[in-house]
Amino acid sequence: MVESLVVPAGAFSEPERTAVYRAIGARRDVRHGFVDRPLPDELLKRLLSAAHSAPSVGFMQPSRFIVIRSLATRKAVHDIFQQANAQAAASYAGERGEQYAALKLEGILEAPQNLCIVCDTQNERGHRLGRHTMPETAAYSTVCAVQNLWLAARAEGVGVGWVSILDPVRLRTVLHIPEHILPVAYLCLGYVERFASEPELQRSGWEKRVPLHAAVCYEAYSEKNGS
Amino acid sequence: MVESLVVPAGAFSEPERTAVYRAIGARRDVRHGFVDRPLPDELLKRLLSAAHSAPSVGFMQPSRFIVIRSLATRKAVHDIFQQANAQAAASYAGERGEQYAALKLEGILEAPQNLCIVCDTQNERGHRLGRHTMPETAAYSTVCAVQNLWLAARAEGVGVGWVSILDPVRLRTVLHIPEHILPVAYLCLGYVERFASEPELQRSGWEKRVPLHAAVCYEAYSEKNGS
Repeated sequence: MVESLVVPAGAFSEPERTAVYRAIGARRDVRHGFVDRPLPDELLKRLLSAAHSAPSVGFMQPSRFIVIRSLATRKAVHDIFQQANAQAAASYAGERGEQYAALKLEGILEAPQNLCIVCDTQNERGHRLGRHTMPETAAYSTVCAVQNLWLAARAEGVGVGWVSILDPVRLRTVLHIPEHILPVAYLCLGYVERFASEPELQRSGWEKRVPLHAAVCYEAYSEKNGS
Repeated sequence: MVESLVVPAGAFSEPERTAVYRAIGARRDVRHGFVDRPLPDELLKRLLSAAHSAPSVGFMQPSRFIVIRSLATRKAVHDIFQQANAQAAASYAGERGEQYAALKLEGILEAPQNLCIVCDTQNERGHRLGRHTMPETAAYSTVCAVQNLWLAARAEGVGVGWVSILDPVRLRTVLHIPEHILPVAYLCLGYVERFASEPELQRSGWEKRVPLHAAVCYEAYSEKNGS
């Protein structure tokens, strides 16, 4: 009751808040149904700008965005996926193995745009502020950029799928990524026929959702809540 | 022109899209100006639910949320910050050192709620899908949860500050975080007097913004664009 009487400084209007929560709730990892129509440059720029607006440790802004449209390059990355996926598939037995084989896990060739987001972890920008104790926050800054882009894309009606079934060493070779630059995320981007109402891995029975209460604990870590 | 004629499947309305971009653009890392008024439970639950809706590799949902309201616990964490910050400060000389000393870098005691978001990296949920080649995507999933929460908080008028100037070993002890659980982010949360129009580290002259064009390259990584 108190909540409705006090409007906090800087709070968005009710419809604006609803839109933000809608993007968060309706965002999906998209692996199929990409439409063979390239994204307009202006739209892609809006998405990259959203990613680039992400928080970064010490304001170092370590994220770099490699936009990939070349079919030859996408085919080379798809080969990397196929090899890694075959190795992963071989690690599952029985019913789980059949279930894995039936999953569609990427849209590298179907999505007209791919995007590799990398992190310049050694960059001296930001003068190492915040990185003395937790240097991994450089890579984490780049993940924040990924999530910004993902939510903006959902609002634009653009599907995004994150492909992690890739050998990073081979990916570096194809995309000319030097040793000191960390590949963080390989994304497939494009218009889609539709967005699914629930996550693909939930719908297919691969994994169930964790209820929120099981993920929250108070004052200290608790294994019973965190299981 | 083409863009305005075609409404992509699933695209949000113009006001909804604007709201999502507003959250992305107006989000700030907040270190001061927290108001001494606790967040209502229902609001906190909305924020945690937004975080919990983040994408996760193999739908493993590895994020666990430790809500901290106890002043004693916040004081213990603040001690950890002070020691780490003194060590960091000692690494800067001259003008840069004076600049560092003048920065306010956390709101641990001022913000009535702190939140430590951790990752159960070894959890077998998701059956390791997507983690054979890039196991770091478990921790990255938790960072996506952080960014979801950050944007939802902005829409609610709630400030969030990420404190990475902490010794993770000491943080584990205070919050009873076991070895197999990775502390990813320590956040200060609360209503604020106002949101700044630009990042604190930009305003104070600590670091300049990277223009977007310098962060984008095409088809392969390019050092000249990525510098």
